[in-house]
Amino acid sequence: MSSTCKGEHIAIGTEILLGQILNLHARTVSLELANHGFFMYHHSAVGDNMERIQASFRLAASRSNVVIVTGGLGPTVDDVTKEALAATLQRPMDLSAEALREIESYFTSRNHAMPEENKKQAMCIRGGTLLPNPNGTAPGQYIEDNDVYYFLLPGPPLEMVPMLQREVLPRLQEIFPAKRALISRVLHLCGIGESTVDEQITDLLVGDNPTVAPLAGEGEMLLRITATDETEELARVRITPVETKLRAMFNPYIYGEDEETLPTAVGRRLRERQQTLAIAESCTGGLVSSMVTAVPGSSDYFLGAVVAYQNHIKEQFLHVQGETLRQYGAVSEQTAAEMAAGVRGQFESTYGISITGIAGPGGGSAEKPLGLVYCGISGPQGTTVYRLQMRGSRDQIRLRAAKQVLWRLCQAIRNPLNGEQ
Amino acid sequence: MSSTCKGEHIAIGTEILLGQILNLHARTVSLELANHGFFMYHHSAVGDNMERIQASFRLAASRSNVVIVTGGLGPTVDDVTKEALAATLQRPMDLSAEALREIESYFTSRNHAMPEENKKQAMCIRGGTLLPNPNGTAPGQYIEDNDVYYFLLPGPPLEMVPMLQREVLPRLQEIFPAKRALISRVLHLCGIGESTVDEQITDLLVGDNPTVAPLAGEGEMLLRITATDETEELARVRITPVETKLRAMFNPYIYGEDEETLPTAVGRRLRERQQTLAIAESCTGGLVSSMVTAVPGSSDYFLGAVVAYQNHIKEQFLHVQGETLRQYGAVSEQTAAEMAAGVRGQFESTYGISITGIAGPGGGSAEKPLGLVYCGISGPQGTTVYRLQMRGSRDQIRLRAAKQVLWRLCQAIRNPLNGEQ
Repeated sequence: MSSTCKGEHIAIGTEILLGQILNLHARTVSLELANHGFFMYHHSAVGDNMERIQASFRLAASRSNVVIVTGGLGPTVDDVTKEALAATLQRPMDLSAEALREIESYFTSRNHAMPEENKKQAMCIRGGTLLPNPNGTAPGQYIEDNDVYYFLLPGPPLEMVPMLQREVLPRLQEIFPAKRALISRVLHLCGIGESTVDEQITDLLVGDNPTVAPLAGEGEMLLRITATDETEELARVRITPVETKLRAMFNPYIYGEDEETLPTAVGRRLRERQQTLAIAESCTGGLVSSMVTAVPGSSDYFLGAVVAYQNHIKEQFLHVQGETLRQYGAVSEQTAAEMAAGVRGQFESTYGISITGIAGPGGGSAEKPLGLVYCGISGPQGTTVYRLQMRGSRDQIRLRAAKQVLWRLCQAIRNPLNGEQ
Repeated sequence: MSSTCKGEHIAIGTEILLGQILNLHARTVSLELANHGFFMYHHSAVGDNMERIQASFRLAASRSNVVIVTGGLGPTVDDVTKEALAATLQRPMDLSAEALREIESYFTSRNHAMPEENKKQAMCIRGGTLLPNPNGTAPGQYIEDNDVYYFLLPGPPLEMVPMLQREVLPRLQEIFPAKRALISRVLHLCGIGESTVDEQITDLLVGDNPTVAPLAGEGEMLLRITATDETEELARVRITPVETKLRAMFNPYIYGEDEETLPTAVGRRLRERQQTLAIAESCTGGLVSSMVTAVPGSSDYFLGAVVAYQNHIKEQFLHVQGETLRQYGAVSEQTAAEMAAGVRGQFESTYGISITGIAGPGGGSAEKPLGLVYCGISGPQGTTVYRLQMRGSRDQIRLRAAKQVLWRLCQAIRNPLNGEQ
């Protein structure tokens, strides 16, 4: 019996390789296993092809000791996962009378006779166990061969996920009782470049327990600290000093941890203070508002937004002065300030934020180049405007600008007098 | 030179194996290649580990001739994709002066000095080509070795996807000059269920040239007709009768073709007619406006939007009657109608559209259940409200509702008097 899980996930289905469906199961299986301290080293996907599936099983057996397979357990001639594993392990299959009864009762309870082709779903690889599937006709299969543990699960998510939880995880906990706990802490940063962060943490990147891994996102980044130890508590003890160090280094840029996002971080801070928010958008065209309202319960603090894509809308709804627009233009510090203060005044919110800029691909000039964005934060302490120069596609400029204004708002809420934390 | 593409995608990143991020690239790469007649036989994912990445490359070279790799091209010590390929192929790396200049200018244009560690992104595997990345610091790498074609692309989607289209696909078309032309026509449908479509086209699904493939999207679906023949023209002759048949069957639901999306379809129709649009959103919170403005040039027809997340904002900015809100509630046919007509009047646009509903997860009741959405279309011919009952998560309800209102608007513009096409 092995002492450490070396996991691998194999997704079976030609539709995955055609790009027709997304391989969500790889993530689901990895996340569930990681949450229980089991680590996966490989994901793969292969089509409904007997030879290639067998090759995948041989490869998996050579490098992993837990092989979780999803898909290919259906009744059609395309579905050959179980047949391929039986052939790979050179074991026969036997009809399980019990599984056959269950499949038949699945159909009779729906007033259908069982089609003949479903009979093959009741076949069991000799020496293995069929795993009950309360939500469909395809039972799963569990079998150990040569110190490798195979779990075959059906493809439909509403069948696969409960079976993963009820049938796979408890068995893994039995197989690997001496497993080590694996814990991660994720810090989310905005307003600082990935390479600037990397330069400052080179000494932390070489450690192996805990490990520190930077991950760049679009307009933000995260640092993941991961530790293993005999218990969760001991693993946490390893994480804490590294986390403290990183927080000290990057405190102004850290807006949240673990599952937090910029919109949830903004929401949490506003809700804690019983404050409200209104938004004035030009170049982002509703994106900031859409991100804020994607958070359940955002109506507790979000009042609304005006998307002012034309100058006369900025005047009419946000009370930007016609003179400001004529003298400085729609993309200017002055307009951004009046938009933020204007939406705050109109909506009577604690904070008003604004974005105006040139997202492209057209509309840039020498004086106001593509990617120039002004974002304004108006609050009880007054109005501040930030000038940003973005590069990238229209989508990138919009998304990065949206994140920047939410991050500046996070800072303003946390630190309204530029002193208190 | 091989005559057939045998493609493989390798995603690099420990965060994928921990289940922290979804491997979207596998699907994107597969779909783009399939659309150009190139088929993938394997997907795999491996962590940021030099040995395992090298093992993945050796395996790929043994079974595939096109290997598309995403991730691990960043500046940190974690990022070892290029180093692993160089080691696998036993080739040295050379500093590219041109790539270094581009990376330096990326930083200087942002008023930063280039950090020393970014220098490694300018290294090129000997004999290969760096692929320009206009949206980030990491160039890609293309190299042929022993009849296997390797493409290394950066992980961020907004960098990867344009490079796939501009750098990878044209090279594949040169490497594998199609003996036969392969052409697709895609029809985009909204407002009709996938199973309803499938039932009506069962006889078309069995053909093999052209093939007809239905693909379900979130709140919409598409039908892809694909044919091959000696020339593009002959392939087109195969497609035309099937396309005509499908258009006759589903005409009211077809809003566009090929690359068109609901926002571009709306934009094209408005621009052709020199008409304008304003939007009033409640439960979608800016999502519709964000989708409309993601289209370059949308300022030609889009005036702006009001996101009215609170009742008093609906009254103040959209002139919804307080009495309407009190008597029927914010989620009602009457409120949706007044929002659409109100935003049209306030913005003086040709069309005003509105959405109000219960996106959840809280807020539902027996009378107004979770997923109940009203959307209003107000135009020169008056105002119409549609009642929708959605299922799914908050994100799904918001996205499906947004697509529904844009689809209804498409219909209203195309068919303003319910007669003219």
